[in-house]
Amino acid sequence: MSIRIGIMGYGNLGRGIECAVKQNNDLELVAVFTRRPPETVSVLTQGVKVYHVDEVMQHKDEIDVMILCGGSATDLPAQTPEYARHFHVVDSFDTHARIPEHFAAVDSSASQSGHVAVISCGWDPGMFSLNRLYAGTILPDGKDYTFWGKGVSQGHSDAIRRVEGVVDGKQYTIPIDEALEAVRSGKNPELTTRQKHLRECFVVPAEGADLAKIEQDIKTMPNYFADYDTIVHFITKEELVRDHSGIPHGGFVIRSGKTGWEGENSHIIEYSLKLDSNPEFTASVIVAYARAAYRLGQEGTKGCKTVFDIAPAYLSPLSGDELRAHLL
Amino acid sequence: MSIRIGIMGYGNLGRGIECAVKQNNDLELVAVFTRRPPETVSVLTQGVKVYHVDEVMQHKDEIDVMILCGGSATDLPAQTPEYARHFHVVDSFDTHARIPEHFAAVDSSASQSGHVAVISCGWDPGMFSLNRLYAGTILPDGKDYTFWGKGVSQGHSDAIRRVEGVVDGKQYTIPIDEALEAVRSGKNPELTTRQKHLRECFVVPAEGADLAKIEQDIKTMPNYFADYDTIVHFITKEELVRDHSGIPHGGFVIRSGKTGWEGENSHIIEYSLKLDSNPEFTASVIVAYARAAYRLGQEGTKGCKTVFDIAPAYLSPLSGDELRAHLL
Repeated sequence: MSIRIGIMGYGNLGRGIECAVKQNNDLELVAVFTRRPPETVSVLTQGVKVYHVDEVMQHKDEIDVMILCGGSATDLPAQTPEYARHFHVVDSFDTHARIPEHFAAVDSSASQSGHVAVISCGWDPGMFSLNRLYAGTILPDGKDYTFWGKGVSQGHSDAIRRVEGVVDGKQYTIPIDEALEAVRSGKNPELTTRQKHLRECFVVPAEGADLAKIEQDIKTMPNYFADYDTIVHFITKEELVRDHSGIPHGGFVIRSGKTGWEGENSHIIEYSLKLDSNPEFTASVIVAYARAAYRLGQEGTKGCKTVFDIAPAYLSPLSGDELRAHLL
Repeated sequence: MSIRIGIMGYGNLGRGIECAVKQNNDLELVAVFTRRPPETVSVLTQGVKVYHVDEVMQHKDEIDVMILCGGSATDLPAQTPEYARHFHVVDSFDTHARIPEHFAAVDSSASQSGHVAVISCGWDPGMFSLNRLYAGTILPDGKDYTFWGKGVSQGHSDAIRRVEGVVDGKQYTIPIDEALEAVRSGKNPELTTRQKHLRECFVVPAEGADLAKIEQDIKTMPNYFADYDTIVHFITKEELVRDHSGIPHGGFVIRSGKTGWEGENSHIIEYSLKLDSNPEFTASVIVAYARAAYRLGQEGTKGCKTVFDIAPAYLSPLSGDELRAHLL
């Protein structure tokens, strides 16, 4: 008996969920829901139907866990509490500052309906958060550092595209090697924003655009670029498509801390990700937590959960005996 | 109200526990138990008494969690089931092959008595196991690799000391850079024992000993050295004490896996530790799980648990609200 998965929203993340479900024998994709006309959306899995989001309640009994693939700005704050009334759900809500209010809204809805809702699932928030918790608890006398990249930042790429004279563009966030090495040395450095990451932009200008002005506008843009060293390259549309179509990402969570009666011994805990596809990796994390949500639901657990609240064994298709024999 | 900790066995690990408890305000060390004459053992924490192990039952009501610091060969297989009858306990049982039987014995005892017993806690088994589980579940189409070192192997150092003509010695296990790089490249290499680690020995020979024979005896020792490239250095007792008194260790858990409809995207998850003091780091992990054991016990949980069974939030002194606001 497979765990029956529904996908709400079929963009990069939704397609990633579909691929991840295929890799897990105990999971089965049963339906995809979209706001677009369903006939315009074609999915990869043979036999799986695409429905309009308005039809979702007609499929309530066919779906064990609904995975919500909308955006954090406007979709998920409404969708997650709404669908938690009817399904176990998992989302990847990633506006860190608004997690407490999202948690409260989802917890109220899921607790009332008796469902399990896992929010903020992915790698940051998600696996990076877990590593901050484990490492920070093990080494309380220490300091932790999160670095992102090398990878594409969607928000910064969008910001470039809003600059006058820009046709298209892509931005890479790059952690600075000297900063990483200083952290790994155990020196607990204080690092400014500029010392931790640099920003590299590949920009397609409009014909006849003022390149010097575009570069200046990008480099001085508040919040996005002004606090960083930023490199701007001008390229053609063809080069952008050929060399920058991927969505790689990754990063590092490093904790440096001391133990011993007088803090005489130093330790470094480092967790890093190097990802060819940010949405597919995020989807792979979400799918593991979908399994956990289903199992917790079967046990009678209800309410909103995060990666902090779920014992690791719930994620794995292996039994407790198998885990202890082979992975412990 | 602090969680009251007892330490059973006061060697390197027991001292590490004492230091780790000092770093956590919600924990309090109340007693140390030893098989030695108690008056010969002096601890670091002011006001903490040392008792003979035979007196332990007289202190039953003063201790919330007993941390068992004995060895895996003979101490823990007897001690953990025994003390789980009377206390919440945590051990660092690390004979991987015998974990299933240890689990069964401890689970039976702890379930009957209504206590929580956390076994095989530390970094391997422990944090490395957790990372194998998380990474393997997220990337099911992949392969994982565990490397150890650079660090001191107690078992291999003991083996050197048993060689004829050897007065003392220390062995370092060293992961081989080329193997690490091959794994990080995503090539999923098949690696032999010899390709993954090398062994470096610092040996103090007896006066007039046959050095060539010692070197030969070490390098050809089955199980311990024969399958590895081994480097032997002869040094004086003074050099051994001066340069090799530390107990550093560490290592790497790396998972390389593929996602996408046809496995077209590669990902690397890497977790690494660089530890000045193996026993103090192990102790720091154990102490976090002692907090978890106590909390689980307060909730009415009973039986044997491993790191796989315990939700991360139980480890941290922070509340759910604080964790979500600051670490997620």
